[in-house]
Amino acid sequence: MNDEVFAAVAADAAERLVAHWRALAAAELPVVPSGPPGTTLKALPEQAPEKGEDLAEILDDTWRTIVPQLVHWQHPGFLGWFPTNNSPASVLAELVTAGLGVQGMMWSSSPGATELEQRVCDWLARALALPQRFQHASGQGGGVIQDSASSAVLVAVVAALNRASVGRWRAHGTEGRYRVYCTAQTNSSVPKAVRIAGAGEAVQVPLLPGTHEMDPAALAARMDADRSAGLIPAAVVATVGTTTTCATDPVPEIGAVCQERGVWLHVDAAYAGSAALCPEFRDGNAGLGHADSYAVNAHKWMRTGIPCDVLWVADHTALTDAVGLTASYLRNPASESRTVVDFKDWQVPLGRPMRALKLWYVMRAHGLEGLREAIRHDVSLAVLLARLIEAEGGFEVVVHRLGLVVFRRDTDARTRDLVERLTRDPVVLCTPATVDGRPVLRAALGSPYTDEAAVHRIWSTIRSHAAAQD
Amino acid sequence: MNDEVFAAVAADAAERLVAHWRALAAAELPVVPSGPPGTTLKALPEQAPEKGEDLAEILDDTWRTIVPQLVHWQHPGFLGWFPTNNSPASVLAELVTAGLGVQGMMWSSSPGATELEQRVCDWLARALALPQRFQHASGQGGGVIQDSASSAVLVAVVAALNRASVGRWRAHGTEGRYRVYCTAQTNSSVPKAVRIAGAGEAVQVPLLPGTHEMDPAALAARMDADRSAGLIPAAVVATVGTTTTCATDPVPEIGAVCQERGVWLHVDAAYAGSAALCPEFRDGNAGLGHADSYAVNAHKWMRTGIPCDVLWVADHTALTDAVGLTASYLRNPASESRTVVDFKDWQVPLGRPMRALKLWYVMRAHGLEGLREAIRHDVSLAVLLARLIEAEGGFEVVVHRLGLVVFRRDTDARTRDLVERLTRDPVVLCTPATVDGRPVLRAALGSPYTDEAAVHRIWSTIRSHAAAQD
Repeated sequence: MNDEVFAAVAADAAERLVAHWRALAAAELPVVPSGPPGTTLKALPEQAPEKGEDLAEILDDTWRTIVPQLVHWQHPGFLGWFPTNNSPASVLAELVTAGLGVQGMMWSSSPGATELEQRVCDWLARALALPQRFQHASGQGGGVIQDSASSAVLVAVVAALNRASVGRWRAHGTEGRYRVYCTAQTNSSVPKAVRIAGAGEAVQVPLLPGTHEMDPAALAARMDADRSAGLIPAAVVATVGTTTTCATDPVPEIGAVCQERGVWLHVDAAYAGSAALCPEFRDGNAGLGHADSYAVNAHKWMRTGIPCDVLWVADHTALTDAVGLTASYLRNPASESRTVVDFKDWQVPLGRPMRALKLWYVMRAHGLEGLREAIRHDVSLAVLLARLIEAEGGFEVVVHRLGLVVFRRDTDARTRDLVERLTRDPVVLCTPATVDGRPVLRAALGSPYTDEAAVHRIWSTIRSHAAAQD
Repeated sequence: MNDEVFAAVAADAAERLVAHWRALAAAELPVVPSGPPGTTLKALPEQAPEKGEDLAEILDDTWRTIVPQLVHWQHPGFLGWFPTNNSPASVLAELVTAGLGVQGMMWSSSPGATELEQRVCDWLARALALPQRFQHASGQGGGVIQDSASSAVLVAVVAALNRASVGRWRAHGTEGRYRVYCTAQTNSSVPKAVRIAGAGEAVQVPLLPGTHEMDPAALAARMDADRSAGLIPAAVVATVGTTTTCATDPVPEIGAVCQERGVWLHVDAAYAGSAALCPEFRDGNAGLGHADSYAVNAHKWMRTGIPCDVLWVADHTALTDAVGLTASYLRNPASESRTVVDFKDWQVPLGRPMRALKLWYVMRAHGLEGLREAIRHDVSLAVLLARLIEAEGGFEVVVHRLGLVVFRRDTDARTRDLVERLTRDPVVLCTPATVDGRPVLRAALGSPYTDEAAVHRIWSTIRSHAAAQD
């Protein structure tokens, strides 16, 4: 295939994307597709073509076959899970990253990719007002871009297991002896990571009564009991902004419990961490002085496309001691001089694309002011939606924090019925969940095109479904 | 930021990429940058900007500050590690994927993204002539796109541990009892994955004498001895095309050993797997009838940008039993109907971008014929380079397989000196390694712009360094 056609087709693709974003912004497309399982499979041939096809035709087919079967996460009516929002700057960066096509596993495999990542992670640590020791510039800590908060917590747990074992873990594995603590409110990726790390079921610490937050005294008691039973408490995962209700564990108290016992504290701020761009939303940073690692998904609420999670560690040798590994074909003078960072030793994969260009583009194109404005805009929309819900009879706001509004109808039967009606409605996507055993709906504001008018439209849709119930 | 400027800047970026590819093809750029550690860090401000900047300026700065400090993996003089090659179709797909901005963790979070991935993984399984049971269409197996062969082997090992434990692993972890087997020639990502999975050091099975291939009899003996000692053999990782010498373990015999003992066999074909697109290079497929999982990096040798590893499993429930996990906010009718695939349960991360569009674009744009032609072209260049080396006094080809040529000078001192001279030469990148305790240079053909003229230029550069030694 010749490169000549590429520029023209890429320009066409960019135009189509702009038209697509406009159609989303105008809510001309449904959020959720209507096809039953198998719709896309049926539309695609069973075998790959033998002969090459034109890029222009493949692009056409994308809009014909694939786009109509997507859930549009950038749609103004998308309030599902947590946002995975995006921006033109991020998309442009993905184009450039792909086109340059470098592999940044080590400093020596692309020095500029590695140093850009060091700098951008430091930029973000500073913008979020994280402790200085998380910066590469501190000499001891540093940030690294992972694909997800799941992978971030996995490598943090693995570093914790290695540290807790005083070297034994590398040779003997987890031996059924190490314990990792979280709560029943912790994201599913955490117990999953603990299992993957071979440490069995994560211990669920009780919640403070009447809250969805970890009880630090119960944590201390459980760790001490485990230690007395011959087990080794290795790590605690605290959450700043849980998925179901955006609850925040009492990190300062948890940190003190961990520090007294020499146990690794990982703080998962996948969603709410971005809010710390704004000084008024920095409560979640309290107690990070005790944290060994901290992760935020820039791809959730920072206009940076997925994947882009940033994991910071206070002591990078804890990470590289655990997952660092080399081989004759990876040795090079720069690595051996120990003056450079090799990100392969900070993550699960060996190879990696140039991960930082996207975050660099987004932080520069929006500026910190622009990113703060976006967060404040989304929070104000959540305030509006919460007010609308509260003003309505037969509805209740269960929790409203940052961009998340959790609500329900006056009876569980009506909530369940509303969930079902909304599931079939293609113009709005809210995620059903369970809070304290009762069904709720979650509305997470953060899609880039959601504005006040969209919130009124969304609310009017929800209301009309509720009105039809009675 | 307004979307209006995006289309124009993206078109400009596409033009710049085409110009960049032309400059690479013409070898007008060095492969390796000359700046010492810190060059890029120094060029970047210490803080993120407060005010947003123009995309056009950021794009300019990319070429001014970042591009000159990259190792150009798409350069015709790049023969390092294994290729991570690329194509306009892949770059175009990355643009579209980023612009659509969907998150495909579950079928219900974007049905089209999931079904496209099922179909494309089936396409590739068929194109590589893999066993039919690896296809989604078989009902029992299926493929999933991972970011890397490292992540693929990690989830395969975790599935194996879960299966070997008969359910105990989920609750109790690895307990120091499970063993995973490979060889000293296996890629570093495998012992790394085994450690991360909490199973300690992977067991290094001896090699067949005079080869770099696993000895199946030694494997059987070691597994039986371990079992007698109360340990549980859980998985064997065999390699089709090792990193150092492109050696292939005797998979049929290893498979028989595994099958007799009910042990999971994962086959890592990260590099050489792509060659099976061509019927004449399908030796590596022998014995896959016994394999439980198989992985190939489409991002190595299939014109698909990084990341794109495809992992196939013969029984997808083995994978989803191990890493599947749900939560109230992830429940939905489609998942509960068990008629759909939720790829979150096939991988470490919870969230994921639409991973398959890139492979779909590449397979369609090149066609299977085009992809085969590219493999054959690279293999023929390796033949040419090997001939040139063999015809030269004072050089020796240690191994030549597929696109890889491993060579050395007549003495180790001269090889080491040549490595050092080449490290300082910016026009060619070969990777030094160690084979049987002796230093070698590896030349892996596969960069998209490497042609016969480039091979002659590369060889003349290497020769002139050698001539300067004496």
